[in-house]
Amino acid sequence: MKYVHDDRHRLHFPQGELFGGELVTPFERPSRVEFILRRMRETGFGELVAPGALDRGPVGAIHAPDYLDFLATAWDEWVAEGFHGEVIAASYPARGMRQIPPRNIDGKVGYYALASETALTAGTLAAAEASCAIAQTAQRLVAGGERAAFGLCRPPGHHASRDQFGGYCFLNNAAIAAGMFRADGVGRVAVLDIDFHHGNGTQAIFYDRSDVLFLSLHGQPEDAFPYFLGYADETGAGAGAGATVNYPMPPGTPFEVWGAALDDAIGRIRESGAEAVVVSLGVDAFKEDPISFFKLGSEDFREAGKRIAGPGLPTVFLLEGGDAIDAVGINVVNVLQGFEAG
Amino acid sequence: MKYVHDDRHRLHFPQGELFGGELVTPFERPSRVEFILRRMRETGFGELVAPGALDRGPVGAIHAPDYLDFLATAWDEWVAEGFHGEVIAASYPARGMRQIPPRNIDGKVGYYALASETALTAGTLAAAEASCAIAQTAQRLVAGGERAAFGLCRPPGHHASRDQFGGYCFLNNAAIAAGMFRADGVGRVAVLDIDFHHGNGTQAIFYDRSDVLFLSLHGQPEDAFPYFLGYADETGAGAGAGATVNYPMPPGTPFEVWGAALDDAIGRIRESGAEAVVVSLGVDAFKEDPISFFKLGSEDFREAGKRIAGPGLPTVFLLEGGDAIDAVGINVVNVLQGFEAG
Repeated sequence: MKYVHDDRHRLHFPQGELFGGELVTPFERPSRVEFILRRMRETGFGELVAPGALDRGPVGAIHAPDYLDFLATAWDEWVAEGFHGEVIAASYPARGMRQIPPRNIDGKVGYYALASETALTAGTLAAAEASCAIAQTAQRLVAGGERAAFGLCRPPGHHASRDQFGGYCFLNNAAIAAGMFRADGVGRVAVLDIDFHHGNGTQAIFYDRSDVLFLSLHGQPEDAFPYFLGYADETGAGAGAGATVNYPMPPGTPFEVWGAALDDAIGRIRESGAEAVVVSLGVDAFKEDPISFFKLGSEDFREAGKRIAGPGLPTVFLLEGGDAIDAVGINVVNVLQGFEAG
Repeated sequence: MKYVHDDRHRLHFPQGELFGGELVTPFERPSRVEFILRRMRETGFGELVAPGALDRGPVGAIHAPDYLDFLATAWDEWVAEGFHGEVIAASYPARGMRQIPPRNIDGKVGYYALASETALTAGTLAAAEASCAIAQTAQRLVAGGERAAFGLCRPPGHHASRDQFGGYCFLNNAAIAAGMFRADGVGRVAVLDIDFHHGNGTQAIFYDRSDVLFLSLHGQPEDAFPYFLGYADETGAGAGAGATVNYPMPPGTPFEVWGAALDDAIGRIRESGAEAVVVSLGVDAFKEDPISFFKLGSEDFREAGKRIAGPGLPTVFLLEGGDAIDAVGINVVNVLQGFEAG
């Protein structure tokens, strides 16, 4: 399987993540990619491909123009305001307040954010665009005839909505790739999100569309970030009714339960008539992940990959979460190897 | 004029405020009260009264039971979760997400917050309840026949909504005092909010009620916290239509403009038939306030107090914002002296 990577993800490495009332070194850090690359090399798996240039059209098809403007100007406006830290949202248009973007950058950041753990820095947009170019290149490989491809996207994307960042995400790579399949003439696309955290951004982007099926296995919102989306009763709206499927699961969920949800999701993909699959590939369902609570072992990821191969559809794997531990490399490669064996 | 104070406000002194992407010493700090007390003593103004016990009935009439439960348990749940910092919201039920309180304390804090600059600590609820008892005692003094009274409330209250904290506020002292006037049989009450920041919580609490008029002079939301409420077109809803009046003003606003807005607000109070006034007394419209942008001088506050006395109504002054600089004492006492001379 070809995999796409380059080093520009390093341009995004905030010093601070708001966690437990403190600013700590972010869990989402550049070494995550290194762990995965090392494992790819150790196992001799796949063939490294450099990404092409970012195609802005498909980005603009998913994200709002004002949000893209915000990402482009936020750092400079923040510095001009005299702030000394990284760009972190403090004030939100919360329940009962108005959804009008302020002029002041401190307020504007809150308008375009859904969480304060994610800092934006001088290099964030360049890194997010490079990550998106990786996703686009992986999609192009598959659209061009490869059975599958893997994009080592960092920063990840699935929490980013049409006009909100958060959960370490800025541009929704999976949504953009799914949109590109549609633009290529693929009738229906499935986004299968196996990251431990609900793909709230992807869900929101496609919630009223029937042409992109969204299926997510994740920690139940009562207990897990992003907390405020991902309930089982969210099934799509309007033309999209029935095209969103959530599998929220409780703390301690073992592979037998998780795997059954995966089987159900795959069955729905088969039934849906989807002609391509984008996998939001987080491996934080792993039992030793520091900020998650499922109990998958490394071999379970291989089995998951095998099952994802089942429908025989063109498949783009895009990296989402999974924290900076050695096992992130093992688990990601296990999914991909399982897929190839499947 | 009698004024109400005690030392329990010191129980609330977070170490960190999220400001400009850093955790800094909060602008809202115990010394604010000391500056005011010192000035009261220097000028021999008024007579100090100790607060009575908190009356929980009027608190429950304004705030939601689940929110009060949250305030009572948040610190212990946070510590039990293993977090090392103070309680600060990181994840929000943002635009497009669901308004369902999670079970996990990290998520629950976001559900009950509107901004991440405000930390909750072990002593916060005790301090907020003491602050509220001060407001209640000031209201009781006026209900009992005093022309006016001043409550040195800290933490402040006007940003706290029915079920949200933020902007340094936890319990909405002004709303609770206004509700107590109504419970006393006063037909209509006016809350006049002259703090630099919009009293979003007070507005939201009374937005659909005709019995409490809310009038606020503040930095326009495009440029000033809380950013997402306080536009001029917010005029109340349902039975409360017309009973909310906002005077958003731009950076650099001088007293001539601010004072004209105050005159308009006072005119509306006169016309409304209000029989009592609660003044949300922030003095951060001061030209040297570190986080505001109006240009009032200290003598302007004396003039403001004089005008507020104009309608001749029973009036409760409750401290809101105004930062920890020597002038906060001068400006607060100037308002009160102006009122007594008015």
